[in-house]
Amino acid sequence: MRTYHSEDHRLHFPQAELAGGQLVTPFERPSRVEYVLRRLRERGFEAPADPGPCDLDAVARVHAPDYLDFLERAWDDWVADGNAGEIIATNVPAPGMSAARRPEGIEGQVGWYAHASETAMTAGTWAAAKASAACAQAATRDVMEGARHAFALCRPPGHHATRAQFGGYCFLNNAAVAARMLRDGGAGRVAVLDVDFHHGNGTQGIFWEDGTVHLVSIHGDPLHAYPHYIGYADETGAGDGAGATTNLPLPPGTPYRDWADALDRGIGAIRDRGAEALVVSLGTDAYRDDPISFFKLDSDDFRDMGARVAALDLPAVVCFEGGYAIEAVGVNAVNFLEGLAGR
Amino acid sequence: MRTYHSEDHRLHFPQAELAGGQLVTPFERPSRVEYVLRRLRERGFEAPADPGPCDLDAVARVHAPDYLDFLERAWDDWVADGNAGEIIATNVPAPGMSAARRPEGIEGQVGWYAHASETAMTAGTWAAAKASAACAQAATRDVMEGARHAFALCRPPGHHATRAQFGGYCFLNNAAVAARMLRDGGAGRVAVLDVDFHHGNGTQGIFWEDGTVHLVSIHGDPLHAYPHYIGYADETGAGDGAGATTNLPLPPGTPYRDWADALDRGIGAIRDRGAEALVVSLGTDAYRDDPISFFKLDSDDFRDMGARVAALDLPAVVCFEGGYAIEAVGVNAVNFLEGLAGR
Repeated sequence: MRTYHSEDHRLHFPQAELAGGQLVTPFERPSRVEYVLRRLRERGFEAPADPGPCDLDAVARVHAPDYLDFLERAWDDWVADGNAGEIIATNVPAPGMSAARRPEGIEGQVGWYAHASETAMTAGTWAAAKASAACAQAATRDVMEGARHAFALCRPPGHHATRAQFGGYCFLNNAAVAARMLRDGGAGRVAVLDVDFHHGNGTQGIFWEDGTVHLVSIHGDPLHAYPHYIGYADETGAGDGAGATTNLPLPPGTPYRDWADALDRGIGAIRDRGAEALVVSLGTDAYRDDPISFFKLDSDDFRDMGARVAALDLPAVVCFEGGYAIEAVGVNAVNFLEGLAGR
Repeated sequence: MRTYHSEDHRLHFPQAELAGGQLVTPFERPSRVEYVLRRLRERGFEAPADPGPCDLDAVARVHAPDYLDFLERAWDDWVADGNAGEIIATNVPAPGMSAARRPEGIEGQVGWYAHASETAMTAGTWAAAKASAACAQAATRDVMEGARHAFALCRPPGHHATRAQFGGYCFLNNAAVAARMLRDGGAGRVAVLDVDFHHGNGTQGIFWEDGTVHLVSIHGDPLHAYPHYIGYADETGAGDGAGATTNLPLPPGTPYRDWADALDRGIGAIRDRGAEALVVSLGTDAYRDDPISFFKLDSDDFRDMGARVAALDLPAVVCFEGGYAIEAVGVNAVNFLEGLAGR
């Protein structure tokens, strides 16, 4: 299995995350990637390849042009406005607000393009986000050219990024870019399987009315887990996408046997809709020691998870997402890849 | 003119405000009140009276019961959840989220009941918010009993608090409570004149479909100013309230002559709708040296402002709102009161 990685992920290195009423060191930090790289080496994967430049046209197939323009200029505008900290949204268009016009000032624009306030942007975020998407694109090209599986070691992650909003540590939706590329490349139907602990709200939003991309997300019940206001089982898509969203929220303390039951239901749903290719949003925060999640998976369970996904017998692009028990991130992610590859 | 003040405002003393990507000392701080109290003394106003206990039934006429319950228990729930900082929303139901259910966890509930992330709640916030509303209630009772004018030195302020959301330093909408009391007490039509620099989004939301309470708000154009996503001139109310919201947004750098033109338009609109009583949301942040605003009013202009409002010849409850050029807050607020009283 080929893997893709860009050192440019380091350019996204915020110092602050709003959590519990404090600014803390972000849970989503560069060192996460090091543990995955080390584990890939330990387990004999070939050295990750640099993905080359990001194809912004492919990114623009799932993100709004004005949003991409915002991501590109946000840091300069923020600094020019006299702000001393990193970019964090102080308010977003909340329920009851008309949101009739995009603000002209950068503070208002930051909130316009955000769905959450935990996530900071820095000078290098745009470059890192493009490099992350480039990893997804390179892996997707491999699969389009006949590879069975490919792994994109994306950072920053992507599945919380909507068509025109950042949040949840995500800026460009790498998995959505991959799914769109597979569709544009000829796959009649594509499935995105999101096993990250947190609901894939960005991916859901992007494909909400698209019946050709089937999202299956297994995640912490939003009654108790971020992103809190989306991800319920009765959200199933609309218009042409009606029925093409499958949300499988699970309660606090869920052990792997229950999690695996949900996975099997998701896999069954993917089979039923007849996907020709698969994108996996591989977060590892369903792990029992994750500091901001509440499932109880062991490291070995990620290998079993990969094996169950392999039984779908579909070409698959795997995009790295969340996972914050940093020292275990590498083992858990690579266990999944080995299960998927039947190693 | 009688004035009301409660020392319990000091119980709301957050240490953090999210601004410019940093946690800073909140602009809305207890010392603001001291400057108003001192100026009232200097100018010979009688000593402020304690308002007595808050009438929660009157508060519940404008706020949702579940929101009031949240405000009462939020701090205990937040601490029990293990959060080390003050209560700050990390995400709210943003555009694109279903917001189909109220979360059960406190983190999700904080965002459910918030429209912004700059505002912190602390252990004493609920008590202070009730004391602030009590000031508005006491001043309103004075006017209902025949006083021409009364001043409620409310803190925390209120006009950004919607029926079920806090934000913008506001928790209970004191001006809305006053207007509702005046209506319930027999006034056929009431006007709320909001001269705070920031749009009175909470008051607008509460009376959006109520044609008997006419909101006139003069404020920084949301294209450039908080709350950014509401407060445009074409927001004029709905249903029974169609036409009963008058927004007068003004651009950066607006001098008093232009501001006063807008005030005169607002006063004309109030006359046209035939109000029998007036509530004034008296923010002083239209002042030229306000650190987070962009109008150019001088201190003397607040006296002229009061005199123009006096020409409406209506009984009036004045509720203190924002204003962050702290040392000038007292002079500016009392100048308005003196202009209103013809002193």
